[in-house]
Amino acid sequence: MVDHVLALNAGSSSLKFGLYELAENNLPCVRWHGQIERLGDAPRLLAKFTDGQTINQPLAKTQSHDEAIRAFLEMAREQLPDINIRAVGHRVVHGGAVYSEPVLVDQKVMDTLAGFIPFAPLHQPFSLTGIRAAIDAFPGTAQVACFDTAFHRTHPWVNDTFALPLSYYEKGVRRYGFHGLSYDYIMQKLKEIAPSLYDGRVVIAHLGNGASMCAVSGGRAVASTMGFSALDGLPMGTRSGQLDPGVVLYMMQQEGMSADEIADTLYRKSGLLGLSRLSSDMRKLLAAETPEARRAIDYYVFRVRRELGALSAALEGLDALVFTGGIGENAAQIRRRVCEGMRWIGIEIDPNRNADNGTVLSTDFSRVRILRIPTNEEMVIARAAARMVQ
Amino acid sequence: MVDHVLALNAGSSSLKFGLYELAENNLPCVRWHGQIERLGDAPRLLAKFTDGQTINQPLAKTQSHDEAIRAFLEMAREQLPDINIRAVGHRVVHGGAVYSEPVLVDQKVMDTLAGFIPFAPLHQPFSLTGIRAAIDAFPGTAQVACFDTAFHRTHPWVNDTFALPLSYYEKGVRRYGFHGLSYDYIMQKLKEIAPSLYDGRVVIAHLGNGASMCAVSGGRAVASTMGFSALDGLPMGTRSGQLDPGVVLYMMQQEGMSADEIADTLYRKSGLLGLSRLSSDMRKLLAAETPEARRAIDYYVFRVRRELGALSAALEGLDALVFTGGIGENAAQIRRRVCEGMRWIGIEIDPNRNADNGTVLSTDFSRVRILRIPTNEEMVIARAAARMVQ
Repeated sequence: MVDHVLALNAGSSSLKFGLYELAENNLPCVRWHGQIERLGDAPRLLAKFTDGQTINQPLAKTQSHDEAIRAFLEMAREQLPDINIRAVGHRVVHGGAVYSEPVLVDQKVMDTLAGFIPFAPLHQPFSLTGIRAAIDAFPGTAQVACFDTAFHRTHPWVNDTFALPLSYYEKGVRRYGFHGLSYDYIMQKLKEIAPSLYDGRVVIAHLGNGASMCAVSGGRAVASTMGFSALDGLPMGTRSGQLDPGVVLYMMQQEGMSADEIADTLYRKSGLLGLSRLSSDMRKLLAAETPEARRAIDYYVFRVRRELGALSAALEGLDALVFTGGIGENAAQIRRRVCEGMRWIGIEIDPNRNADNGTVLSTDFSRVRILRIPTNEEMVIARAAARMVQ
Repeated sequence: MVDHVLALNAGSSSLKFGLYELAENNLPCVRWHGQIERLGDAPRLLAKFTDGQTINQPLAKTQSHDEAIRAFLEMAREQLPDINIRAVGHRVVHGGAVYSEPVLVDQKVMDTLAGFIPFAPLHQPFSLTGIRAAIDAFPGTAQVACFDTAFHRTHPWVNDTFALPLSYYEKGVRRYGFHGLSYDYIMQKLKEIAPSLYDGRVVIAHLGNGASMCAVSGGRAVASTMGFSALDGLPMGTRSGQLDPGVVLYMMQQEGMSADEIADTLYRKSGLLGLSRLSSDMRKLLAAETPEARRAIDYYVFRVRRELGALSAALEGLDALVFTGGIGENAAQIRRRVCEGMRWIGIEIDPNRNADNGTVLSTDFSRVRILRIPTNEEMVIARAAARMVQ
């Protein structure tokens, strides 16, 4: 029986997973990874083993979100009889102001995490569903919660609060920041490949379907474009990003919209989709010829630049800019356009290196290093789970 | 009968005014200025003539907001029999996407302006009240509307929209920006005293009880920290400034607050007052010894720096930073602290020049010029009114 850890990332419509063998040094090595798509609707398992074998099959479609996760875990346990799951690591959206590190889950932790649901009502419940399903499928196995907020707990006061009555800060309305597992991975990688940049002033642009940017100084998070919720900061596939709170008041007072209608508009109908009237997918917009698609991209690029300037102010200068996430890793045109407007800050991109999707994208003479590092949130979860049972 | 113009700035709790003699070149020269405080409550007239005479007297306290303005205009007309009011200029908060210049008021204009009330329900009605009262007091006299939004109509698309469904832009939910009369004054002054900076990349920090910053390139506004409403951007005396829209959803969904309660919190209980639990007045906070007051100031200073970085990204660099408004003109400590964190962008403040409240505050070697220019919104209104009747 070979020791393994399982990393789970349970979202509202998908479950991503990775199965990692623990090598002698206890470092996880991926063996099987994939995801279930369309959870709660017509769930389908797409997975790949490192030996090349793939799975692409529907899970019985009558299953609810929760049942689909349970069916998958049952299947995994039965199809992999020769392995020993030492720990299951979970991506948990919200760790509140409490957790700045991964934590071994017990009932008290579960209760604490449930207490954060009001902060992330659209996301936190799915994190908890995943943990409960894994406890049932692997009873007695260590369950490790890894938080998207934990990396940001080092924010100084000015980047942790809003200018609201102080009671809001006290009851937990803070600038938590998210995508922390991704930022954690990038910083671990940066420490490995460029230790002097790791020690400097770094902005990481995690540009995926969700998107945020994080300012890191000397390895510690200082600021993020995401605040209290997953809505703030950069525009995203379907989310608005930064929005004047007066617009929400306008929706309430002038349009008579309910909270659910506003949330639906801001989370699911805004961002690239709302502006382009076409798609939330940057690849489709880049291929489209419509003026709306072009303007949606213009807006996106500008907001990344604007936040880059703002985060540089938080860092009092900039040494490195790292692109990651689906768009950050693959959309060379977006990276180029972001960087072309930032020469004033010492950013000089090499068009060929950028087009080739290499690791270093800046010219040799650029004062700021520009890097492209593919992220791997499941690996951060697997490492945390492995450490916990070491 | 000497020709004069009257400039009126009617807010929710005060009416500021200036009476200007028109010299031969038609340039306005101030003769009498002041304000009525506590409009609609216990109105009091504080005014000063340029010959040194002052007025400090209550207006009869039973009067409503509207009646107090009418009483003042009646008094002005009677007490100044030897002058001829050629035009009355008005500060109007909202000119929508329609007005990029001052306009002569007729019934059609009044109807258009009333149509913008949904965009600024807490401010626009007072602008209209002032105009109506002046029409009644000076019938047949030219009434000129001068807009706080007009200066910003040159914003490019990326700084005029939010990433909402495009229909919101179409119905007028845009990044209007405010304090445009102040920015207009500063740029006119800059053209006069430093034409090469006027042509460059300028950020103006209008730091008063309300506060915003504006990026200007070649004399044209490019971006503002204020967006759709007067809530966005910098923290203010009692307003929140930038706020994750998810926090408004939290107030609705988790705290069951009504739109009016949320508006009251964000407009009247937040900002410096909310964070300090002490005062909305920067002078009081600077003099206070409490940790909350210190942290409120820390937050304020940091947000100015953050927006300075962001607006510099919009300008692709920075040549000059201008401080204005009550705090910007008088709080040397705030200016110093903002600038000290911005050396990375080429800002180098001279501590002595700054402490002396001079015009040029930067060192001779600073790459970015730092200026302090007292603003004068009423003068911009008077000039526009004078031009209109030229």
